[in-house]
Amino acid sequence: MSRHALREEVLEANLELVRRGLVVFTFGNASGYDPESGKVVIKPSGVPYEQLTPESLVVTDLDGKILEGSLRPSSDLPTHLALYRAFPGVQGVVHTHSRYATAWAQAGVEIPCLGTTHADYFCGPIPITPAMSAEEIQSGYEWNTGQVIIRRFGGIDPLLTPAVLVAGHAPFCWGASVTDAAHTAVVVEEIAHMAYLTVTIRADAESLSDTLRDKHFLRKHGSSAYYGQKS
Amino acid sequence: MSRHALREEVLEANLELVRRGLVVFTFGNASGYDPESGKVVIKPSGVPYEQLTPESLVVTDLDGKILEGSLRPSSDLPTHLALYRAFPGVQGVVHTHSRYATAWAQAGVEIPCLGTTHADYFCGPIPITPAMSAEEIQSGYEWNTGQVIIRRFGGIDPLLTPAVLVAGHAPFCWGASVTDAAHTAVVVEEIAHMAYLTVTIRADAESLSDTLRDKHFLRKHGSSAYYGQKS
Amino acid sequence: MSRHALREEVLEANLELVRRGLVVFTFGNASGYDPESGKVVIKPSGVPYEQLTPESLVVTDLDGKILEGSLRPSSDLPTHLALYRAFPGVQGVVHTHSRYATAWAQAGVEIPCLGTTHADYFCGPIPITPAMSAEEIQSGYEWNTGQVIIRRFGGIDPLLTPAVLVAGHAPFCWGASVTDAAHTAVVVEEIAHMAYLTVTIRADAESLSDTLRDKHFLRKHGSSAYYGQKS
Amino acid sequence: MSRHALREEVLEANLELVRRGLVVFTFGNASGYDPESGKVVIKPSGVPYEQLTPESLVVTDLDGKILEGSLRPSSDLPTHLALYRAFPGVQGVVHTHSRYATAWAQAGVEIPCLGTTHADYFCGPIPITPAMSAEEIQSGYEWNTGQVIIRRFGGIDPLLTPAVLVAGHAPFCWGASVTDAAHTAVVVEEIAHMAYLTVTIRADAESLSDTLRDKHFLRKHGSSAYYGQKS
Repeated sequence: MSRHALREEVLEANLELVRRGLVVFTFGNASGYDPESGKVVIKPSGVPYEQLTPESLVVTDLDGKILEGSLRPSSDLPTHLALYRAFPGVQGVVHTHSRYATAWAQAGVEIPCLGTTHADYFCGPIPITPAMSAEEIQSGYEWNTGQVIIRRFGGIDPLLTPAVLVAGHAPFCWGASVTDAAHTAVVVEEIAHMAYLTVTIRADAESLSDTLRDKHFLRKHGSSAYYGQKS
Repeated sequence: MSRHALREEVLEANLELVRRGLVVFTFGNASGYDPESGKVVIKPSGVPYEQLTPESLVVTDLDGKILEGSLRPSSDLPTHLALYRAFPGVQGVVHTHSRYATAWAQAGVEIPCLGTTHADYFCGPIPITPAMSAEEIQSGYEWNTGQVIIRRFGGIDPLLTPAVLVAGHAPFCWGASVTDAAHTAVVVEEIAHMAYLTVTIRADAESLSDTLRDKHFLRKHGSSAYYGQKS
Repeated sequence: MSRHALREEVLEANLELVRRGLVVFTFGNASGYDPESGKVVIKPSGVPYEQLTPESLVVTDLDGKILEGSLRPSSDLPTHLALYRAFPGVQGVVHTHSRYATAWAQAGVEIPCLGTTHADYFCGPIPITPAMSAEEIQSGYEWNTGQVIIRRFGGIDPLLTPAVLVAGHAPFCWGASVTDAAHTAVVVEEIAHMAYLTVTIRADAESLSDTLRDKHFLRKHGSSAYYGQKS
Repeated sequence: MSRHALREEVLEANLELVRRGLVVFTFGNASGYDPESGKVVIKPSGVPYEQLTPESLVVTDLDGKILEGSLRPSSDLPTHLALYRAFPGVQGVVHTHSRYATAWAQAGVEIPCLGTTHADYFCGPIPITPAMSAEEIQSGYEWNTGQVIIRRFGGIDPLLTPAVLVAGHAPFCWGASVTDAAHTAVVVEEIAHMAYLTVTIRADAESLSDTLRDKHFLRKHGSSAYYGQKS
């Protein structure tokens, strides 16, 4: 993908977050990564979405060195970089403070797989990170946010579980492209909303059986998928 | 009804789900059935609603054999077919993952008849299916989803109770036409929303008396109905 | 007021219910009463709001005899008539199934006066009716709905408390004009919403003190009112 | 700032409350204060937002004496004046009855700092005032509302904690300008909404650690801030 095309895609993903009601003011950020050139394109920090243009986005390398752009990158850039470095195949990262997903993060509770809507996208709960230590917070906070996510994903395939709740904070989502990551951010909020309603109807609502969870996940993912059109 | 008119009506019902906020992305599907020709018109699988045209819809027979159309039908087609075969008079089926109705399905709880809004449309609770067995899930899942609905409706008239919650999944609604089924899908979400609010105000809220429930249901249905204009 | 002006005002009040999100489909109805001519103007039954015109409204007398119009009046007309006959000064009645107010009615719980927003409009709880007997339901149901409201208001001034929850059903609101009644319907839903949030944060939330309740009510009502502009 | 510019800014802040869904009808009010001229510009009482113009705003001095304008000022003016007099540096005050913040006020519970969204704006809970005495309510109510806020802020820097819940009533927000105060009003509602969801998922959700709270607050405030663009 040309760098210009990546700028356009990252801009569009950022604007999708606004259209879907996932962000207010300057909350949230989306980035895309091109492994061929090693370049990351990310939203500038604290700039209103309606002022974003492809040219206002910031381009860095995987060390966070600014290659193009006159604005500061999103302060969460180091978290994005940590995820690109640790999760092979991930080429888009989206962070929002969407209400329902953030509420689960604030409650310190993973989102259980309570229904087939969830299982269509995630083959298990949406995990939550453990608390960060005072040291991790005080120095290199955003980088360490990435590290606590990565530690939490020991033994979990990030492409089968493309989102996490950072405890006390909010969700991070990712995918094979920034478009996919933004799509996942919308779905995570929808799933979080339904799970909220479910546990407030019935606090001890049970998770889906493994059989039903796998059935729905595999209808849409993997070699036996039969949802959607042949591509 | 001409096949073209049915295509138009099925398209319109699918779009109504979007306008009413019952679906996000490609979730949900609506179909119509013409008993005279034996043809079913249904949404294609995984196609965005804004790309739907009358021509993009898929036409099958009651065995699911594709008669017209180049796209795959919705993966839930076998559930629709099972309902058309088992429920005489049903000529429209709508499936959504609308939030409140889905939350009740995920909680595994039928929607109790807590008020007259509910009784205006349903003469009793909106039933929920029992869990499906591992065998039913692993092979012929969508067809078996229809079968578990049909078993649940032993002794219930599907035209007096035109919706069901599939446990852990979401609602299916139906009616004498796909337009009616879509109308019912909107009403089910509204009823589910009100019931949610009611039980979170007061967990032991009581169902409507049989007398009041029947009064409201019969104001709008059957030979003594007096709601609306004479048709 | 000329009869034409009343038709326009009743139409506008009905449409206000749609704009404020208080009704879906054909739920709800508004009427106005002109004591000089003894005429009542009301929405026809089951007609979609977008098809309403001043001419489609139905004009009756206080006995419900149709004086003008070719459509059936709202099936709730007898409730409206009962209120006009019993509550002097009331010249507008609005009935909706707005979500939060309906949820309180379904829960069978009056809306307590939990804050100053409530006290700005209601000098005490929004009352709820007792259950109707089987006889009241089976014969003359809509007229008897009015009677149970009127009995509940023994000792309450209906112009100081211009709304009620009918248990298991939904709110009725009224006022010195249908415009006022529609305004009150919007406020009742807002108050019901805030009260819902309050009791789900804290089940034993306390009602406002009498002193603070009276202060706010009397800021906006009565001879010492000082809210708004001098009229 | 010229008086005309302040009128424009106050008008814009009032309209922002409508656009963000924080007010219905004539609820709520925003004012700005120019310390150089000693003038306060405030919304007139009970005037619909769509009728507001820069000229319709009311100009007073810090004693509430009307200097310009033919309409009555908002009845909450004395609360605004009390805050301008007591809190140095505050040049804008906004009062709304936004739903979630009002619900916390009605529940009589301060909004705990449950997540980083909160800590990005408030370095601790959003405080709630104690109940006012009958005397404070019956005479000089709006002025005394200001006094109870000021007493509650003994030992709290109002510019680090730019909002309060008045118990049983609703939030007041403030800032270095009326634009800032309106921005804070939006954020308070968002934080109140997330906190509501959090405590209804988990009643005993824990507040953020002091370390994480301070980290987020200081990312955006003070001399070491690194969020946003260099100004």
